[in-house]
Amino acid sequence: MKKLIIASTSTLHGGKYLDYLLPVLEQHFAACEEILFIPYARPGGISHDDYTENVRLAFAKINKSVKGLHEFDNPIEAIQSAQGLFTGGGNTFLLVSQLYGNKVMDVLAKVIENGTPYLGSSAGSNIAGLTMQTTNDMPIIYPPSFKTLGLLPFNLNPHYLDADLQSKHMGETRETRIKEFHNFNTIPVLGLREGSWLEVTGEKIILKGNLSARIFRQNETPTEIEPENDLAFLGK
Amino acid sequence: MKKLIIASTSTLHGGKYLDYLLPVLEQHFAACEEILFIPYARPGGISHDDYTENVRLAFAKINKSVKGLHEFDNPIEAIQSAQGLFTGGGNTFLLVSQLYGNKVMDVLAKVIENGTPYLGSSAGSNIAGLTMQTTNDMPIIYPPSFKTLGLLPFNLNPHYLDADLQSKHMGETRETRIKEFHNFNTIPVLGLREGSWLEVTGEKIILKGNLSARIFRQNETPTEIEPENDLAFLGK
Repeated sequence: MKKLIIASTSTLHGGKYLDYLLPVLEQHFAACEEILFIPYARPGGISHDDYTENVRLAFAKINKSVKGLHEFDNPIEAIQSAQGLFTGGGNTFLLVSQLYGNKVMDVLAKVIENGTPYLGSSAGSNIAGLTMQTTNDMPIIYPPSFKTLGLLPFNLNPHYLDADLQSKHMGETRETRIKEFHNFNTIPVLGLREGSWLEVTGEKIILKGNLSARIFRQNETPTEIEPENDLAFLGK
Repeated sequence: MKKLIIASTSTLHGGKYLDYLLPVLEQHFAACEEILFIPYARPGGISHDDYTENVRLAFAKINKSVKGLHEFDNPIEAIQSAQGLFTGGGNTFLLVSQLYGNKVMDVLAKVIENGTPYLGSSAGSNIAGLTMQTTNDMPIIYPPSFKTLGLLPFNLNPHYLDADLQSKHMGETRETRIKEFHNFNTIPVLGLREGSWLEVTGEKIILKGNLSARIFRQNETPTEIEPENDLAFLGK
């Protein structure tokens, strides 16, 4: 049975890495002693080693050890034998390129479908959707495809930002960008605000945190959904 | 001789479409009675016809007529015989996909290199760089390549935004995103603020408007360049 935590952000303003999620993660990874971390997205260009070390420090607080996927000669086997999985944020184009390049996109989807507990934050959450096409990231590298894990029956927009009505900036708002996506795509999109996460258990997709999330569907006016509601209906 | 106006934005806050640029465009397109408009980027999903109509209204103020590239059966011939060219903003992934799909990327570069006056704004400016990899847009469609016109010896980040030091948002700043680009790419990037444009005449690339622009180079601290300076050195 699928078991996912899909977080908008790893870190809240003024907080430490993963801190706000640690009570949730303690339960989520209760059966795991070791977490396999996928550091491919490399936020700000941090090295795989340094990124994994940051994650190690955070998980030490709930007594879990951490290994980085880059430490293994055979990443496919590493994923197949992982007790629990975490893909961190950074650049989604880079992450997806690396997952395809190392031929682990399919195996990752398969072990998660089969029940290996998964945590994603930011870019690591983006890839849980059907495609990466509603990422906020810059296309710093050309991936072989925009298709991602498809663990959710919709796409995510993490770090969702409401339009700032005071702004004098003329760049597109997040909502306009998602509207442009829906000119060419029927996939629903969930705008997940910072501090929100999804708790996926089998077919249930429950919105967690204190904030509502914004639902975008092709040819429909966006709506808000409140915490504790199930988002599975978006796939129907 | 190349003759380009490369604008960060088509519209300033509180202003009308292209208004702040009209005196510049009157000179730039002095020899043209008709402008060929490339509406492919479709901001907010506007139709090609409606987008072209908006552009027609703006250019009417300086007594230029406008045709949309989508009105022609043979877009290659239309570009080859254009007196002046304008590519409007919207989604860069869509624009680049359409330029490749209609097989006009190369011919567009060629006529502009040979002297057809060109105006780009936002996405239409992005494509003047070497690649579209420093766009701010969402990957709503998968283009066959990120390579663009290469009329400038660097990449552009239009609508460049300085980090808001008061913000509690944890998404990456524009500067962080460009830094991530430079982990994998050596191409210099110019952050062009709204209200700024480049005036390209042959090999000269002069920064115009009242604001400085921000220069990003691999492994270097970003620097600012003031208006009226030549950016050609970035290609050397």
